[in-house]
Amino acid sequence: MRSIETGEPGHSADQVTVRRTNLALVLRHLRAEGPRSRATVAAELGLTRSAVSQLVAELAERGLVREGRREHGSVGRPGTTVELAGHGIAGLGAELNVNHVNTIALDLAGEVLSERQVALDARTAPAEEVVERLVELVERTVADLARRDVQPVGLTVGVAGLVDEDGVLTHGPNLGWRDVPVGPMLRERLRPAYDVRVDNEGNLAALAEATPGDPDRRDVLVIFGEVGVGGGIVADGRLLRGRQGYAGEFGHMIVEPQGRRCGCGRVGCWETVAGLRALLDQAADPDDPVRDPSLSLDQRLTEINRRADLGDTRTLAALDQVGRWVGVGAAVLANALNPAAIVLSGYFAAVGHHMRSAIETALVDGVLAPGAGGTRVELSTLGFTASVRGGAQAALETVFADPARVERRPLARGALR
Amino acid sequence: MRSIETGEPGHSADQVTVRRTNLALVLRHLRAEGPRSRATVAAELGLTRSAVSQLVAELAERGLVREGRREHGSVGRPGTTVELAGHGIAGLGAELNVNHVNTIALDLAGEVLSERQVALDARTAPAEEVVERLVELVERTVADLARRDVQPVGLTVGVAGLVDEDGVLTHGPNLGWRDVPVGPMLRERLRPAYDVRVDNEGNLAALAEATPGDPDRRDVLVIFGEVGVGGGIVADGRLLRGRQGYAGEFGHMIVEPQGRRCGCGRVGCWETVAGLRALLDQAADPDDPVRDPSLSLDQRLTEINRRADLGDTRTLAALDQVGRWVGVGAAVLANALNPAAIVLSGYFAAVGHHMRSAIETALVDGVLAPGAGGTRVELSTLGFTASVRGGAQAALETVFADPARVERRPLARGALR
Repeated sequence: MRSIETGEPGHSADQVTVRRTNLALVLRHLRAEGPRSRATVAAELGLTRSAVSQLVAELAERGLVREGRREHGSVGRPGTTVELAGHGIAGLGAELNVNHVNTIALDLAGEVLSERQVALDARTAPAEEVVERLVELVERTVADLARRDVQPVGLTVGVAGLVDEDGVLTHGPNLGWRDVPVGPMLRERLRPAYDVRVDNEGNLAALAEATPGDPDRRDVLVIFGEVGVGGGIVADGRLLRGRQGYAGEFGHMIVEPQGRRCGCGRVGCWETVAGLRALLDQAADPDDPVRDPSLSLDQRLTEINRRADLGDTRTLAALDQVGRWVGVGAAVLANALNPAAIVLSGYFAAVGHHMRSAIETALVDGVLAPGAGGTRVELSTLGFTASVRGGAQAALETVFADPARVERRPLARGALR
Repeated sequence: MRSIETGEPGHSADQVTVRRTNLALVLRHLRAEGPRSRATVAAELGLTRSAVSQLVAELAERGLVREGRREHGSVGRPGTTVELAGHGIAGLGAELNVNHVNTIALDLAGEVLSERQVALDARTAPAEEVVERLVELVERTVADLARRDVQPVGLTVGVAGLVDEDGVLTHGPNLGWRDVPVGPMLRERLRPAYDVRVDNEGNLAALAEATPGDPDRRDVLVIFGEVGVGGGIVADGRLLRGRQGYAGEFGHMIVEPQGRRCGCGRVGCWETVAGLRALLDQAADPDDPVRDPSLSLDQRLTEINRRADLGDTRTLAALDQVGRWVGVGAAVLANALNPAAIVLSGYFAAVGHHMRSAIETALVDGVLAPGAGGTRVELSTLGFTASVRGGAQAALETVFADPARVERRPLARGALR
């Protein structure tokens, strides 16, 4: 029996839609569950074996899956497994930061195909010039890919600030930018054949930390700290953006109404007590090198860690005090969201092993549910690349949503029969 | 051509799974998009017309859909529309509150089939006795349904407090209960043929306020206030429960670290400044009837509204002050979640028209995104029945997830041909 999922030519528009939906279903299933045989995929998705074989063949022609090792599964005869490949395509991620612009290209299996960075000072340079540096970097990244015969399927750029649906950075307090049309500028300069999107860097960092297939990483809150504090929420495996895309602005939750004035003009925002500046101000005098902005942040955080390791009282007290405030804000969010994990990213990850106990104590104290409702505190292992990786993953999502976007090509060696 | 969705006997397990998935797809589509012809459903879902006709016939045999009016649509000839029916089944919702227990039964189209309430004082009575009152009420509700030949498909009970996955109320500060196995007790006493679940009343109120098909009601935050303050989050049309089901405990976010001690033992929880007690304490002296707990809450709130309407300075100042704090907490949540709407429920809805301007001012002031990120403040129109309605809807969700749970029955008059 030939079913309507197989997608042979001559079928109606309805049937083509069903076939595209099923292509995406199979591709996402392989991502969520890992390599497995066609028979296993068929049983798990409730499709016929012949339909799955034809869907897998089409995904292979589009370069998205390949043969893996042989499997002795529970369903039927041992078969060859199928796994994500996607060496022919890449998602591009970029980040436009206060101190640098950078790019990354990831294939469908998450492997890095290209990685580039250029230092600059986005506070003093005009926005047009910063965007132009990013354009050059993206063009070089696309050239890296072209040499390997890899097509970009999308570019997502992370920025520190509020981004509207058209990719306009409406308010970036730490960049000192207002209403900069980053997305439209990039589209005009790059004239790309792929989609260009702009998103908040905290949202993208959250995407990078979440693993849709893992129950311990399906409901994740990422808190991203530098001078500002932001983040993102992944609920049930999906990024929560909110009505206008402004979700995740954790840094401006008011936690200390009698506290310090924030860069945004309000008093007592979380970032005034949990941001990098709060830590450095308490840990060192103004002329201390850890407060010298001309040194790299990595160097300064390494020095903070060195002093903490040596037991320096002032450094440890500062880490404890800021850690307590990180935990107070984390508890506010955990009462509302009860995430499986709160992942600390950015500067929090760099010095977090010295803050963790203060954070956990404040979290358990502040959450009504017993044992903090099971919420674990974790330190990101992605370093400062979380946002740019999340950007590349967001770009690849367009393929997981509709694999037929990627053209069929002659099958290369090592691909599926 | 017969497609594999049609579900005739003799098909394999895989094909049965696909058919059940498609039954659910059609039923949920009719809920989200409203009555429409089979041809329109087929075009919108990418299924064949013959598959849709057979799926609709099966849904009708299960009593879940019926013929509606004739439609002159854009697709093909005018046809008879299909709409949700479900007069043969009902979802049961119940609430176990400080002052009463109550039940409701809703059919698939949201119509009330039965509604019952019994007053009691859950603080002074033993938990077993309160649960026994609820058992009696559920049994009478099920008897109401049996007289109309309606089968219950599930019961969801809302309680004020933390509920674990097994339906144990682990901590109910306002009931004064700890570790009461409400779910297991109900299952043992009722011995039901349907599922019994227990959930936080704020979560259920949030479900009642959300409309999955409406973009303005897909991302909704419900804030439910009585003595305690709680609520629920619906993101992208789905209730966000968190890792252990503890999401929505908004009342214990610390917003005023230098403030009053809360019933939970912490200092400065949102409910100490935004709960009913904060309003009554500021609005009236201890011997004032509005602070007399032996009077019904409705009466006392009506009196507060009467005084505010007459321009009583103290009452208006109290509403303004508490409204400001409601807005401060709402802003914390809106920075994190950027919902389309914040729906105020419980006592907030009763006196909210006198608080709204203070709430909106504090919300706009406290949210980083311009214009509060588009988040609107709305007053619930469901009154104190929001949780119990949400409970009945949650029970009906099992049918929308798998319509084949409902038995086929001979077609009644007025059902589908």
